[in-house]
Formats: sequence, C-alpha cells, structure tokens
Amino acid sequence: MDSWRTAIVSTGDGNIRVRGYNVTELMTRATFTDTIFLLQRGRLPSAGERKLLDALLTGCADHGSGAPSCAAARLAASGNRASLSAAVAAGLLAIGDEHGGAGEQCMEMIARGVAKAKSEPASSEPTSMAAVAARELAESKAAGRKVPGLGHRVHKTRDPRTNILFAIARAESLAGDGVAFMEGLESALEQEGKTLPINIDGALAAILYDLGFEPPAGKLMFIVARVAGLAAEVAEEHVREKPMRIRIPVEYDGEPPREI
Amino acid sequence: MDSWRTAIVSTGDGNIRVRGYNVTELMTRATFTDTIFLLQRGRLPSAGERKLLDALLTGCADHGSGAPSCAAARLAASGNRASLSAAVAAGLLAIGDEHGGAGEQCMEMIARGVAKAKSEPASSEPTSMAAVAARELAESKAAGRKVPGLGHRVHKTRDPRTNILFAIARAESLAGDGVAFMEGLESALEQEGKTLPINIDGALAAILYDLGFEPPAGKLMFIVARVAGLAAEVAEEHVREKPMRIRIPVEYDGEPPREI
Amino acid sequence: MDSWRTAIVSTGDGNIRVRGYNVTELMTRATFTDTIFLLQRGRLPSAGERKLLDALLTGCADHGSGAPSCAAARLAASGNRASLSAAVAAGLLAIGDEHGGAGEQCMEMIARGVAKAKSEPASSEPTSMAAVAARELAESKAAGRKVPGLGHRVHKTRDPRTNILFAIARAESLAGDGVAFMEGLESALEQEGKTLPINIDGALAAILYDLGFEPPAGKLMFIVARVAGLAAEVAEEHVREKPMRIRIPVEYDGEPPREI
Amino acid sequence: MDSWRTAIVSTGDGNIRVRGYNVTELMTRATFTDTIFLLQRGRLPSAGERKLLDALLTGCADHGSGAPSCAAARLAASGNRASLSAAVAAGLLAIGDEHGGAGEQCMEMIARGVAKAKSEPASSEPTSMAAVAARELAESKAAGRKVPGLGHRVHKTRDPRTNILFAIARAESLAGDGVAFMEGLESALEQEGKTLPINIDGALAAILYDLGFEPPAGKLMFIVARVAGLAAEVAEEHVREKPMRIRIPVEYDGEPPREI
Repeated sequence: MDSWRTAIVSTGDGNIRVRGYNVTELMTRATFTDTIFLLQRGRLPSAGERKLLDALLTGCADHGSGAPSCAAARLAASGNRASLSAAVAAGLLAIGDEHGGAGEQCMEMIARGVAKAKSEPASSEPTSMAAVAARELAESKAAGRKVPGLGHRVHKTRDPRTNILFAIARAESLAGDGVAFMEGLESALEQEGKTLPINIDGALAAILYDLGFEPPAGKLMFIVARVAGLAAEVAEEHVREKPMRIRIPVEYDGEPPREI
Repeated sequence: MDSWRTAIVSTGDGNIRVRGYNVTELMTRATFTDTIFLLQRGRLPSAGERKLLDALLTGCADHGSGAPSCAAARLAASGNRASLSAAVAAGLLAIGDEHGGAGEQCMEMIARGVAKAKSEPASSEPTSMAAVAARELAESKAAGRKVPGLGHRVHKTRDPRTNILFAIARAESLAGDGVAFMEGLESALEQEGKTLPINIDGALAAILYDLGFEPPAGKLMFIVARVAGLAAEVAEEHVREKPMRIRIPVEYDGEPPREI
Repeated sequence: MDSWRTAIVSTGDGNIRVRGYNVTELMTRATFTDTIFLLQRGRLPSAGERKLLDALLTGCADHGSGAPSCAAARLAASGNRASLSAAVAAGLLAIGDEHGGAGEQCMEMIARGVAKAKSEPASSEPTSMAAVAARELAESKAAGRKVPGLGHRVHKTRDPRTNILFAIARAESLAGDGVAFMEGLESALEQEGKTLPINIDGALAAILYDLGFEPPAGKLMFIVARVAGLAAEVAEEHVREKPMRIRIPVEYDGEPPREI
Repeated sequence: MDSWRTAIVSTGDGNIRVRGYNVTELMTRATFTDTIFLLQRGRLPSAGERKLLDALLTGCADHGSGAPSCAAARLAASGNRASLSAAVAAGLLAIGDEHGGAGEQCMEMIARGVAKAKSEPASSEPTSMAAVAARELAESKAAGRKVPGLGHRVHKTRDPRTNILFAIARAESLAGDGVAFMEGLESALEQEGKTLPINIDGALAAILYDLGFEPPAGKLMFIVARVAGLAAEVAEEHVREKPMRIRIPVEYDGEPPREI
C-alpha cells in the first residue's frame, strides 16, 4: 500500500512533532486549547485567539443531559458497560445538521457572502457586508432555503453565549467579516419585523470564520467541545447509575394482532 | 504496508468469491441466512441449520423501540439526519454485556463446561452435562459470579422464544451439548427452589454453540439480527417524525448556583 | 416524557409482535429475509420478493476486506478488543454517499423520474420511462450533477451482480419502473458513446424501488447486508489475529521541525 | 418516563449552569481545560492542576496518523463524506484496552495498591508505596496477569512524555501516590533486571489518580485529548484528499474456488 501523507504529526526523528513542534515542548508551554488551534490552523494562537477559542469550547461543552448527544451517550453507557469509547461515540453520532451541526453550513454561507462582498468594487466594507447579508437573506427566501445560525425553538432573545463570544471577539480585536455578516443577517430580519436572533451555531460559525478556520471546523469544534461534556455524562452514568436502568416509554400505533 | 490476510472474500480472478463460492452463484442459489452462516462457519448450512438460524435471527431482530439499542438509534436519527449509517451505528453501540451481550459469555461458559465433561472418563454424556452444569453453578455461587443466560427482570417463566428455538433444534436433530448444558443449569437451579428460566441470551448461546459457532458469534449474531430492527426503527424515524423531536426530561440534583 | 410512538413492535399483550405478527409464529414460519422485508414494508413478501431480496442482501454482504467499511471495522477490532459492537459500528460509519450510499440518491432520482413519467398523458409506459431517463441525464449534465448508480472505477462492463439481480427480477415478474429507468439511463449514455454500466448501487436502487421500499432503504438495506460481512471480518480479526497488529505507513509532508 | 437525574448541568433558571456555575461566567473566566476538569471533578482546578492537565491532554492529542484511532477515522472520512461526526466516532471506536485504554486498568491497580498501603499500620508512606508496588508485581506474575502501564513495543527508555508529566507534577507539588506507585513498579522491575519503563498510559494513570479522577477517566481523558487530533485528521482528509482514495491491500488465504 502507498503511504498515507499527512502534515499533522511526524515521528521520523524519534520525537513526536505536532505541526513541527516537539510534543514535549508543547506540553511544557502550550495549553490544550493552543494545541487544538495548532492542530487545525497549523500555528499557535495569540493570547486573544486562545481566549476566544477557550470561550467557544467552554460554551459548547454541555447544555444539558437531555440533548440528543448526551442522551444517546447515556443510553449506550446503560446497555454497553464494557466500552467507554462506544458510549462517547454514540453521543457524537447524534450530532449532525439538526443538532450542533448548523455551524458548518453557516460558515459556508459566510464564506460565500464574504467572497461576493470582496468581489464588489469600491464599497466600504461594513456597509457591504450588511448589504450582502441582506441579499443572501432575500435569495434564501426566494429559494425557500432555511438560513442557518438564526432562531431558536424556545428563546426569542439572543443566546447569552452569543453575546459573550461577540464581546470577547471585539475586546480582543478579532471580530471580523464573520461577526459582521451574521449581525447583518440579524438586522435585515429585524427590519422585516422578524425576531430571529443569532443562535449558538451562528455565533460559533462567525467566530471560527474570523479565527480563520475552514467550514468543516464548524462541526468539528462543536464535537471537540461536546466530547468534554459527553465524557462527564458517561462517567456519571458509570459511577452513579445501574446498568440497563433506562426505559423509554413506547406507544404502539401499528397493525393490530394478526396471524400469518 | 504488508497486506492484510483474510480467508473470507477473494477477488483475484475477477469474481467476488465468498469462502470460495462465486457471489453470483450464491445470489442465485443461497438465502441471506445461508450467506450469514457461510461467512461465519466457512460452509453452507443444511436445511435444518438454516431453519434454526432463521428462527434465531428473526427472534432477536427487534423486541421494542424502548430497548437501549433502538432508543439510541432513534435519538441519533433525530439529531443527525444526514447519516443513516450513523444512526444504526449509535444503536449498535448500546449493545454490550448488559444488552444483547450475555450470549458471548454464555458460549464461553458452555465451552468450558463441555470441555470438562469431555475430559471426564467413562460417563454417559447427557448425565455428565447436567452434572457439569450443576458444578458450574456451585462454583459460580462460591465465587460470587453471576451466571449468564438465566433469569429476566420481569418474566418468571421461560421466554417463549427459548421454547421455540429449542423445539426447532430438537425437531431438526440439532440440539446438542449447548442445549443440554443450559437445561442442566436451569434444572439445578430449580432443585434449589429458584426459578431462573433460560432467557433469550442463554437460548441464543446454546443454539449457536450447537451450530458450531465461536463465542464472539454470541454477540455478533445478535448484532446481525438487531440491525434488521434498527434499520426499521431509523427508517420510521425519518419517514414519520420530525428532526429533534425527542426531549428527555432531566432532573438536576447537583451543586446549587454559585459564582467563581 | 411523552411516549415514543411506533408501528413496528408491540409488547402490550405479553407477546412480542412484529407488525402485528407474534414473533414466535414468525420464528417458526418466516425466514430472516422475510422478517427484514416485513420490518421495512409492513407485510410479508411473496416467494419471488423473498428470492429477490435474498439475492440483493447476499450480493452486498462483503466484497473484500480492503473496502473502507471492512478495513475500518478491522482497525477498530485491532485496537479495541473489548467491544465487538464497537468494531462493527466503526465499519458502518465508513458507509456513506461515497461507499455503499449511492443507492439512496439513486432511489430518489428514480422516484422523481417515475413521478414525471406518470404525470405525462397518454404515453406508453416503457417508452416513456426510457425517455424520462434520457431527459434526467440531459438535465444532470446541464447542471453539472453526477448521475448516481452508473460507472465503476475499474470495470467497464456491467457488474455481474447487476445482471443476476435484473435476471431474477424478470424471472419473478418483479422488474418494474426502477429497472426500466436505470436501463433507460444506461442506454441513453451508450447512444452518446459512453460506457457507464449500471453498478451495484444502481442495481440495488432499481430493485428496492420495484419492491416498494422508501429511498432511505437504499442505504439501510446495504447496511443490513454489509453487517453480515462485517461480523465475519471482525470475528476473523479476533480469532486469527493479534491485537494492535495493524500499522498504517505514513509519510509526513508538513512543517519542518521548529521551536515555539 | 421518569426524569433522568444529573449533577452536571442545570438549565432551570433560564441559565445554563455547569456544576453550578453560569456558563457565561465560565466562558469569560475559565479555560477549556478548566471546564474539562470542572465537568469531571465538580470544582475548578488550581493553577498547577490546570497546567498538569493541559500537559496531559496536549501529550495525548495525536501521535501519528497511523495509529488505529486516526486510521479508522480517515477510512470513515474517505467512504462517508456526509458526516464528520461519524468519522470522528469511528476513530474513537478503535480506542479500547489495546489502544489508549490501559490507563483505566492502571488507575484501578493504583487505587487497589494505595488502599492496601493505607490499610497497613505505621509504615512510612514512600517505602510502603514502593513495597506495595513490588508486591502487586509479584502477585501479577504469579497469576500470569500483564501489568498495565509499563513497556512499549519499540522504545526501551521512558516515553519522554512520561518524564515531562512527572516533572510538572513535581514542580507543582502534585505528585502523590499515583506517581509513587508507578515509579515503585518500574524500580521493582529494574531490580529483576527488566527494562519496562512507564509508558504514556501508565503516566496518564498516575497523574489522573493524583489529580483525584475516578478510574473511568483513564480512558475518558485520553478520548477527550484524542478527539482534538481526530478532528484535525478528519479535516485534513476532507480538505486535501479525494473520497474513496484509500485502498488496503489484501491477501486471500482461504478456500480455493469451488461450486455449490
């Protein structure tokens, strides 16, 4: 078989090197968040970038045992005691476009919007970004597409995590086109009389875009964050609860009893 | 890299061959159950063996949406609409020693018991197997080990699926040491005044042992069967239900609100 | 929590009933393939339908240990000996649009095409289906879309499994719009001088469509079939091989050694 | 259904609270590593504990694309482009007792050893811990058990990551019974003329034990760390590589061609 090429880790000189840095040097001088940034972006973060990524990962780690990811992990932990990795993996498998996954689509939308704004001549940037966001909204409405990153089943105001992330981004001078685009979308909707505030997926997408991450990171950083929560949910299930304790109540509405 | 060796499938002569048979010939002349048997055992089954394996796989395919495997698959399907394989896999990950997994341990116990019985001189076999089962029980009790394959949280009588499997095995002259050992265990318990009938894991283990399968098949055949059910559960979730419909109710009993 | 509704399995009267049938009656009288059909379609198959589904499942069970699904399962089995379900699940997770997943897209395309053909007035059906297939091809070409279910990286002739499946479908009078549509596509391409024969995904889609399955079954039936193969691959890894035997050769082409 | 109880996250007062702290306050003032510690231990770490956990998580994030976890994730990413969470999960499923999993067993061994040492009267602790380690070694040898956390397939000297972790633990006054026990084991082996240095699993176990984590954390913290690496491996596969590019070479050594 041909070798698999990679630009992430080398072990050729007897040292484990991550993106060129000796892992032992990283262990001494970098935080785990630095390592996560380095693995994705190929360089270590600035102090501001680290602070922002710390906030993002902390904000997505866990928002309740009832979320599909946490509940699936607990069900697996309840039935399959022998493999902790299986339980965490089951939790991850509940993450997709509907749960924790809109960030990726949202980053693609931002990238599209920013590319359009950049290709337009002579327009001042902030105006342009809001205008492009408004146009994206109009096009999505015309095409019947749902706009990712906005709105919430329950809350009508901005997720407090969105506010914190944007505040840190501004304080660290890291708020860029991503934040501008998402706030442009939100304003355009408000002008139509609709209250669809930026949700955590939209905030995560804006921040990761401004930190220079690729769209897949919109899902992958949520996954990295959520695994911290899943690890705690699974540990609690093992330490506090009995196996097979969970019973889901089911109501049957299919064929009545019959014979072959 | 060195090649990976395998004795399962070859494609060298331009044909896909499963255990030596051309897959197109199998498609014409074999059932899916024949193929499952062939993949595990390296030969095609007799008509009786096919009937018995059909009964076993049908009996384990699904016993209700509330089982951890089915519920985990539905939770994943609810949150992650984009990947059907992820939802089925999440269901599988709930299968382990506690749910659908006792069959493997039970097959190891039977193999141990049968090996002991065979190594004893001059004893007639049926007697010996019951005696060895009784001894296994005594040893397990002394060591504080739980005996797999017996008892049920709810039912006090034999699982009706156990009776059907054993009846087919007898009708097809395929009931051997596995069935004898498990019935020996059950009898030994009854003589102690305990009602711990052979459950579906124990029946599956006895039957697979008598069909010549290796212990890992005690879990793997449950998995093969259950995937048929999971595929239906996931399809129903996609076709009938909305994404993110599932909310698990959670009660918090941890630290009260506090400040850093 | 509200109950989860389901039309698949009931246990209300003390019996496990699958789509209304007592599981013990199914165990006595149905094959595993019957059960798979029943779970998906809500009724038992005819003899011809059973034969066709048996051929399809047998044909997709395994086509070599080097496929991503089989290789991922073996890697997991090599590193994580404690959980057989984890290894099978890892194999499933390699199944998606690129591997074993085109069947679903292909079924959606057939459904779209058939709906169009039906909505056209007064045309004889076989002609119409070929015409609609040709039009679908033209539209896909114009839109730059890849047409699923056709072509193969290596083979330039029809997959022999396609021929067998279509032959059985015809012999059992079960070849319908699905087969006609896919053959229409293939012919339309040939008239353009292109040799893109119907591959196994396309054949599976045509057959499942003609058996009345929903599009998700295009992936789910491949999954059900493939788990039979994965169970054998994982069993072989456990029984014949040592843990952690697999080494993938890696070549690093990233940043040279550097200091923080 | 009964509610599921949890002591991890509450949302009752409209705020997401993790172990009692408002998530927005954590986002402003805690690092991701603080959050990981908080989720597992129920309190925020000291500066020294944070530094030690950062080093541990950084040290386990990735040690090469050829490891079973990374390779399984890449195989899944290659075949199943549609679900990033499925690819990361496939990688996790390769983690078990053989790969990244010895930490849990090792923590259980340390806990057993420490409990014994504590129950012995009037012995000075450092001596006692080395003595108990030596006795554990003797008992394991007698019982034919492998001792977890020691030795490496290739390296004969201590993993450099072990040295760094123990040095940080000492500098931060956090090296306790865990480190003492593992070093006691290593010394006892050296006195027998065997060079089996503490490997990364053993170092991780010693450190987590001294940080007050429960044994399951021996696997779970490796999982949390490794997901950072898997996220980078999967992103690289998506961004740099074509789908279905991976071919594993297979050599068949089974039944020769035969007919039914």
